[in-house]
Amino acid sequence: MTVASTPHEGPLYSECRTLADNARAASRQLATIRGEAKDRWLVRAIAHLAAGRDEILAANARDLAAAPGYGLSSAAIDRLKLNEKRLDDLANAVQGVRALPDPIGEVVQSSRRPNGLEVQQVRVPLGVIFFIYESRPNVTVDAAALCVKSGNAVILRGGKEALHSNRAIYARLVDALIESGLPQHAVQLVETTDRDAVGHLLGMADRIDLAIPRGGESLIRRVAAEARMPVMKHFHGNCHVYVDDSANLSMAERIIVNSKVQRPGVCNAAETLLVHRAIAPTFLPQVAAALDAAGVEIRGDEVARSLVPSVVPATPADWDTEFLDLILAVRVVDSFEDALDHIERHGSGHTEAIVTGQFLAAREFMNRVDSSCVVVNASTRFNDGGELGLGAEIGISTDKFHARGPCGLRELTSTKWIVQGDGQIRG
Amino acid sequence: MTVASTPHEGPLYSECRTLADNARAASRQLATIRGEAKDRWLVRAIAHLAAGRDEILAANARDLAAAPGYGLSSAAIDRLKLNEKRLDDLANAVQGVRALPDPIGEVVQSSRRPNGLEVQQVRVPLGVIFFIYESRPNVTVDAAALCVKSGNAVILRGGKEALHSNRAIYARLVDALIESGLPQHAVQLVETTDRDAVGHLLGMADRIDLAIPRGGESLIRRVAAEARMPVMKHFHGNCHVYVDDSANLSMAERIIVNSKVQRPGVCNAAETLLVHRAIAPTFLPQVAAALDAAGVEIRGDEVARSLVPSVVPATPADWDTEFLDLILAVRVVDSFEDALDHIERHGSGHTEAIVTGQFLAAREFMNRVDSSCVVVNASTRFNDGGELGLGAEIGISTDKFHARGPCGLRELTSTKWIVQGDGQIRG
Repeated sequence: MTVASTPHEGPLYSECRTLADNARAASRQLATIRGEAKDRWLVRAIAHLAAGRDEILAANARDLAAAPGYGLSSAAIDRLKLNEKRLDDLANAVQGVRALPDPIGEVVQSSRRPNGLEVQQVRVPLGVIFFIYESRPNVTVDAAALCVKSGNAVILRGGKEALHSNRAIYARLVDALIESGLPQHAVQLVETTDRDAVGHLLGMADRIDLAIPRGGESLIRRVAAEARMPVMKHFHGNCHVYVDDSANLSMAERIIVNSKVQRPGVCNAAETLLVHRAIAPTFLPQVAAALDAAGVEIRGDEVARSLVPSVVPATPADWDTEFLDLILAVRVVDSFEDALDHIERHGSGHTEAIVTGQFLAAREFMNRVDSSCVVVNASTRFNDGGELGLGAEIGISTDKFHARGPCGLRELTSTKWIVQGDGQIRG
Repeated sequence: MTVASTPHEGPLYSECRTLADNARAASRQLATIRGEAKDRWLVRAIAHLAAGRDEILAANARDLAAAPGYGLSSAAIDRLKLNEKRLDDLANAVQGVRALPDPIGEVVQSSRRPNGLEVQQVRVPLGVIFFIYESRPNVTVDAAALCVKSGNAVILRGGKEALHSNRAIYARLVDALIESGLPQHAVQLVETTDRDAVGHLLGMADRIDLAIPRGGESLIRRVAAEARMPVMKHFHGNCHVYVDDSANLSMAERIIVNSKVQRPGVCNAAETLLVHRAIAPTFLPQVAAALDAAGVEIRGDEVARSLVPSVVPATPADWDTEFLDLILAVRVVDSFEDALDHIERHGSGHTEAIVTGQFLAAREFMNRVDSSCVVVNASTRFNDGGELGLGAEIGISTDKFHARGPCGLRELTSTKWIVQGDGQIRG
């Protein structure tokens, strides 16, 4: 296997190199800066974003006016849109990051060795993070806040459709950096819309420690294929709820409705319901009525259709589809083992839930299901940094390496070992 | 950047695919197997290796006889060689792994959320590990023991010069797997010597979760370039000892001699000594005599040479060289800041030590030096899994992602979140 790389020359390459060099230098300073300085920046950023509200909304209006020309869907335009309420939410999110404890310097483990050496493993920043996202201007602030709070310099590359909004926001973040004594290049924005800039930066593993793509699957695949540094990936969630024969059926109904309906467009929403054959004749008509009332289309296997005539036939592809919509695939399984087998075959390792009254079924499910989050008797929607107690999150990793599940401040750090002695040598 | 991949067809590809499929299936079983079964395997492996001693030594003799034909250096032949003493050491190492606590199921963090959900982050295996190493038959046993103890299936690919030894050892490991009820494919050996097999396996990110190359830099670079899955890299160690003007000079002498001489061919041995100008006239002649008595060649800058006439002139390349030999580069620095600057410019982020009597110098050094291990008043040789209290190690990672420094059992694991409730839904 050979790698044909983008040529390492030209003005765009030099521009990217400068960006990465500046980020590297800033990251060296950030690594030892005091937590109070980072928190001061977050407070000042909130103030500057508030003072710049009119300009930011005007810039956003320019982006919104141009959006149809870019062919953005109405959902994408909604994600691009800022307003007073969304800017308030953003300020609250930054306030939330400020309130989190500083992860840097945390002692992960420590011991005193028999020879008297004091050994500590302590948390340190990763260094430089390259964050690539789509046209969601609020992510510009979220990502900058999380990366800098965890002691990292960040290079932001947002979608071109949000460029005016991002520039207006970015200018305020930089004002706050300068004012609070943080390195100005702690946060940088890639302002060129040339797509080759991303390729250049993804090749600079000597300067950038981590790439985080946030957006659709094609963006993530492109970044994973091109990056020469580690990538924190957040692929799709084909999440399952399995209702065991011992389940409390009204609890099961609440859980599947919440898992599907509460926010259908997100990765921890349920996409497939598996129902044990023994309770299907009672449970399926009941849950179908509740789902129908919530506007959910049910695509079922033959047994499900025989029990609920309004169910649409499921195609084989439906078992592997992340609908991100008010659609639910439903299958009746013969046993607990068949449910696990279906999940292993079709699941994406994101979030799976069981509703059960049996201790051993719960235990088996927790042990055997290989997903970033396994839930017993609760909604799949709890696989979320805030809900699990991590505070804000930068994404939900579906990888097993470095970080799995919701990624908060700790997941943006590395560690180093500190060894203190009084003259010890090895014999 | 485009990737031209090895064609995904042919008998070798199919053979590799079968290997990876078998490993995947075994890893699913291993993920939930009890710790006592893994430990039983380790005990049975020791017994089978002892019973097979004559066959293993005979196979090793065949490899040793063929070694000159492969052009192996005498150091490489020494690493290839097995004897009674080395087999005893190997059995003791496996016994050491058996004695370590099972990392799987460890609760990394937990909380009870305000809504009553019980949240736990627990340790789980990574899955399948592809371990690529050079011609050191003892590594076959070490790697298998660490991977399986941490719940992972492992595919071993050793150097072709050790193939007979590896086959003889591997047969005994499999006997022990079958006898102790572990999946037979928990450990597999790539028996073909076709180098394309490595390329095929490095492309199977859907089946293999981690690649670990152990050997020289060219092996690591090849694996890092070709692997489509994460790689745990162990690059070189250009390690520094800085002797501050406040150092106890006899302590400093003991530490630099130990760091350089105790085992010069390993990655945590010191390669450069930095000495503060204020103490150089006293310290350098003293330490040069001690190093000379230990057979160390000193390559120094002009100031060092003016103080110790026997010092050889250092070339610019010497500051960046991992000698792995009885050679030490020596530089006199004007200040603590100059020492840090030299380390930042030339260090490889592996291990750096300071010898100092000053509290603030120690504190600054620990905070500002960006290496996997920072040592105060002790030998660089302590950056080692056993010495830091991790037990056995599979390597010392110079990456920041996932694992940094010595990698023991925990570093071969991932985590998952477990959420237990009684009907909670999101509002």
